[in-house]
Amino acid sequence: MFKVNDNYLKLPGSYLFSTIGKKVKAYEAAHPDKKVIRLGIGDVTQPLAPAIIEALHKAVDEMGKAETFHGYAPDLGYEFLRNAIAKNDYADRGCPIGPDEIFVSDGAKCDSGNIQEIFSTDNKIAVCDPVYPVYVDTNVMAGRTGVYDPSTETWSDVIYMPCTAENHFVPELPKETPDLIYLCFPNNPVGSAITKDQLQVWVDYANKVGAVIIYDAAYEAYISEENVPHSIYECQGARTCAIELRSFSKNAGFTGTRLGFTVVPKDLKSGDVSLHALWARRHGTKYNGAPYIVQRAGEAVYSPEGKEQLKKQVAYYMNNARVIKDGLKEAGYTVAGGVNAPYIWLKTPGRMTSWEFFDYLLENANVVGTPGSGFGPSGEGYFRLTAFGSYENTVAALERIRKL
Amino acid sequence: MFKVNDNYLKLPGSYLFSTIGKKVKAYEAAHPDKKVIRLGIGDVTQPLAPAIIEALHKAVDEMGKAETFHGYAPDLGYEFLRNAIAKNDYADRGCPIGPDEIFVSDGAKCDSGNIQEIFSTDNKIAVCDPVYPVYVDTNVMAGRTGVYDPSTETWSDVIYMPCTAENHFVPELPKETPDLIYLCFPNNPVGSAITKDQLQVWVDYANKVGAVIIYDAAYEAYISEENVPHSIYECQGARTCAIELRSFSKNAGFTGTRLGFTVVPKDLKSGDVSLHALWARRHGTKYNGAPYIVQRAGEAVYSPEGKEQLKKQVAYYMNNARVIKDGLKEAGYTVAGGVNAPYIWLKTPGRMTSWEFFDYLLENANVVGTPGSGFGPSGEGYFRLTAFGSYENTVAALERIRKL
Repeated sequence: MFKVNDNYLKLPGSYLFSTIGKKVKAYEAAHPDKKVIRLGIGDVTQPLAPAIIEALHKAVDEMGKAETFHGYAPDLGYEFLRNAIAKNDYADRGCPIGPDEIFVSDGAKCDSGNIQEIFSTDNKIAVCDPVYPVYVDTNVMAGRTGVYDPSTETWSDVIYMPCTAENHFVPELPKETPDLIYLCFPNNPVGSAITKDQLQVWVDYANKVGAVIIYDAAYEAYISEENVPHSIYECQGARTCAIELRSFSKNAGFTGTRLGFTVVPKDLKSGDVSLHALWARRHGTKYNGAPYIVQRAGEAVYSPEGKEQLKKQVAYYMNNARVIKDGLKEAGYTVAGGVNAPYIWLKTPGRMTSWEFFDYLLENANVVGTPGSGFGPSGEGYFRLTAFGSYENTVAALERIRKL
Repeated sequence: MFKVNDNYLKLPGSYLFSTIGKKVKAYEAAHPDKKVIRLGIGDVTQPLAPAIIEALHKAVDEMGKAETFHGYAPDLGYEFLRNAIAKNDYADRGCPIGPDEIFVSDGAKCDSGNIQEIFSTDNKIAVCDPVYPVYVDTNVMAGRTGVYDPSTETWSDVIYMPCTAENHFVPELPKETPDLIYLCFPNNPVGSAITKDQLQVWVDYANKVGAVIIYDAAYEAYISEENVPHSIYECQGARTCAIELRSFSKNAGFTGTRLGFTVVPKDLKSGDVSLHALWARRHGTKYNGAPYIVQRAGEAVYSPEGKEQLKKQVAYYMNNARVIKDGLKEAGYTVAGGVNAPYIWLKTPGRMTSWEFFDYLLENANVVGTPGSGFGPSGEGYFRLTAFGSYENTVAALERIRKL
């Protein structure tokens, strides 16, 4: 008789954004007259940039002719895309990353969920608290997290690194030594950034204790300050301790187009075993590449026109961030984030819990945000709003919130 | 100090098609004057059908306008696609499968690799021998296969079900009881088909012993005979024992466009635990959906124009299958497959091993095929050719082979 992976049964509740989706759907069904504004999930709303649309049409035409048709993609992704990434995201920033260290994928969510597979289930993970739920949930599924304590909403074998107002939402080095350290900067959900000097401390620490940093830089396009690194490979020594996850979802609006990549430097080893080789083996065995047309769309992100158009798109969202931050401040809220990231992290008013504030905002302002406690225990009493709505909706949402 | 998943280190050699790719690349580099014909990997060559190209262009235009832009897709995939699948692939064949039992993905390779995750690592798998390497390799990575014996090229904890000329390449029920049974029909690599009555025996067996059948039906569009089932759900009782994997790669030429789906019936349970719920949790946590434009392309596969155009595309490839089969027979080879599947399975001549014949064919005919032994020990002495080349290349390849 077959048995299931009972690690799955340990997972409390369902995936955060699925839960929110269901709650909002139920509210809308019960109140068809209300116009709900979604500033919850980090989903973009602006159309794909003209340079990307043009590249997609061109690639579609290629797929319609035998001479230019494309079947299975190369294992790591097309060279035209990996070369563009290596040049623009790495060489131009002084980071020594080669095109053959870049693995093109269908997005950073999948990669951030799958990357743990190449590590031992004995390894101990450290995560920021609050944190993007995928890091922890996928380690639960792998049996790496121990026992769940519902009273504290924590796992016995996970090292939590609180990100609070006291440390300006940048974690301190953990007291217990981890094997895998998940860092996400600019941070989701709290919207904080890390300086190059601060990140260098983490790289030095990881090299010293023999840990791997899984660095999620999905939001790097939103960095506005000079001393904030766009890649962990801007730090000395990162090639021997860091894997970097990148996404086209937020810098180019690809949430529904699906493209990302993971960098595994060839210097990253456990004894003789290269993590690059292990990830290549996983990629080649369990994955079959991002669509050709989408990889061509990704290439257009790096064209002069694409860059120009996307700079404006990012500025559009960051203007929303300003609207949210200023609006909340005027309404008396305590807020963080929104300077180098499209997320605003606010303290819930009074003694409201995160989920109480979620319901309060949905029912009274018809605005959807994300409860901070959904991201971890230190998120309790906080709430995330995203800058990814339209300008009009963002302004309208803040007007409603100010009237509460 | 971090440790790697040492199950990966047990994997012998690299992924079969990566190895072939490297060998061919090396040969071409050394012989730039030779025109190599690829009939190895099951990769299509015909362009996407006009109805699909039209749907792609339309969807791309939608992505370029704010009013019709699409961000994150629904967890299971868009309803328009799941409804089309449920109607055409299931309801129209009398199979009781609902749209909410269909999980849209980026392809059957990923799904066939990932599906094992929701099962216990204690479960014992049974596979056909020879077999598509992904089923075994992904179970090795999960630590489910025991110890590898290089002399027999088998794993201690895997139940092998030989598919040989004696049983017409359809396996018999295993003597040892498995928990998970991987079946692929029409079969890759041997090109055989299973009748409805034969498959019913497997469904009854699985229900009796409490096993789950993971049924890979990626090649169902190539079925030409009446008594061959297109879906395992044509058999009575399959809803309580079978998961079905489907792909758009072979019926619609999506190898470079990436779309597939997995069916997990809600009746499939281990005690109280629904496999549908577990797979939904995996899908929602580790995956972020197929691109909107690709899901629209998938919808076009089921349009009247799409169906008509793809019927011709399948017929084109099956004509190639006939050319290969007839050509090989005329040249004195013993061949199987090619009637309900785009694969031809030939016995290597004399005492040549599969890899010896691979090198012989590459060097003397400049034709690439796949060594049968790459698919498992019972594949030794066999060789796979695919019907997915162009007609011109297929005819040319057979002319070269006949001249050997």
